[in-house]
Amino acid sequence: MKIAVLGTGVVGQTIADKLISLGHQVKMGSRSATNEKATNWATQNGAEASTGTFAEAAAFGELIFLATKGDATLDIIQQAGPDNFRNKTVIDISNPLDFSNGFPPFLSITNTNSLGEEVQTALPHAYVVKTLNTLSAHLMVAPGSLPEETSVFLSGNAAAGKAQARAILESFGWQNIIDLGDITTARGTEQLLPLWVRLYAKLGTANFNFKIVLE
Amino acid sequence: MKIAVLGTGVVGQTIADKLISLGHQVKMGSRSATNEKATNWATQNGAEASTGTFAEAAAFGELIFLATKGDATLDIIQQAGPDNFRNKTVIDISNPLDFSNGFPPFLSITNTNSLGEEVQTALPHAYVVKTLNTLSAHLMVAPGSLPEETSVFLSGNAAAGKAQARAILESFGWQNIIDLGDITTARGTEQLLPLWVRLYAKLGTANFNFKIVLE
Repeated sequence: MKIAVLGTGVVGQTIADKLISLGHQVKMGSRSATNEKATNWATQNGAEASTGTFAEAAAFGELIFLATKGDATLDIIQQAGPDNFRNKTVIDISNPLDFSNGFPPFLSITNTNSLGEEVQTALPHAYVVKTLNTLSAHLMVAPGSLPEETSVFLSGNAAAGKAQARAILESFGWQNIIDLGDITTARGTEQLLPLWVRLYAKLGTANFNFKIVLE
Repeated sequence: MKIAVLGTGVVGQTIADKLISLGHQVKMGSRSATNEKATNWATQNGAEASTGTFAEAAAFGELIFLATKGDATLDIIQQAGPDNFRNKTVIDISNPLDFSNGFPPFLSITNTNSLGEEVQTALPHAYVVKTLNTLSAHLMVAPGSLPEETSVFLSGNAAAGKAQARAILESFGWQNIIDLGDITTARGTEQLLPLWVRLYAKLGTANFNFKIVLE
């Protein structure tokens, strides 16, 4: 499948690596087509890996990952051109973290709104799915590296988008995938981040996850 | 030990029942000393169970549970008299849930503040510990009813208060107790509620909990 990954940071690179390893064609999008991190990534990943501007990558992808910093996500969508997302599943991993006052971050959008909802509003013709945003980059694509099966959450309005996102998650190794409901439920997972960052500080590792245990 | 439980709802009754079963003397506090739920509870729980106004209960308790609705917690502290909390451990279970727009609730205090912090500010001479606020009343006192050991969180400024809260939690059956840090870390657990309420809606039960799994 042709997949765009918007973002060249550790999340974007980790997702892109995994998608290549699964046999997908991946175009990594960034502000400039000559972005050094993106071109280095493509060089190391063979013929199925390519780079482009955000717009070129979004146009290329049949499915699009938003692996962008939360405070840049909405700008990048505009740079990429909302029409390039039309009728596509958009997997939004970004969180509205505001580090302007240092660590721990605040949420720049929260409580009665979420970044997931803002992304869906900006892309009314796309199938936005918020998922993987509660995990370290490493665990996003390697859930089996934890000693127990843990949970990942899905939020989105379109059943087709969620089915496609679920298939991608399963290909990453996820089994315990909890569909929380429509995109407003992204408020729930984005608001998990304030606990996540404190657990990160307490545990001294980002490689932990939540397992939902029922009576 | 003499313990006050402020609040007569399901959380207050469940905590009070458990404390009686553990051999404590428990005074349940409410707005009126003749509150029917409180007097019924005391009648059913023998000589160690008593009732009183919020102020009478707070004065009685060597340790005080706030099992109040989040939107009433700060008012109830004023009714109870902040001096009655002086040099005592205060276990704050309440969450700042705002149901004025129905379900799911919003948070009335969040992101850059927490109800736990507001309680500590209102009670500067008490050792406020936020804990148990991420659980159904049933699971608060019966963690062993889940098929696996799950996690409960502690937030508070005073080591002495947290040690006392930890001892109470252990007497309830908790083993995996994660001390997140000072009272500002209550922002993390209070902001778990937006995910909790969506999981409650999705799973059809309140009797689930989070287990933190590390790599």
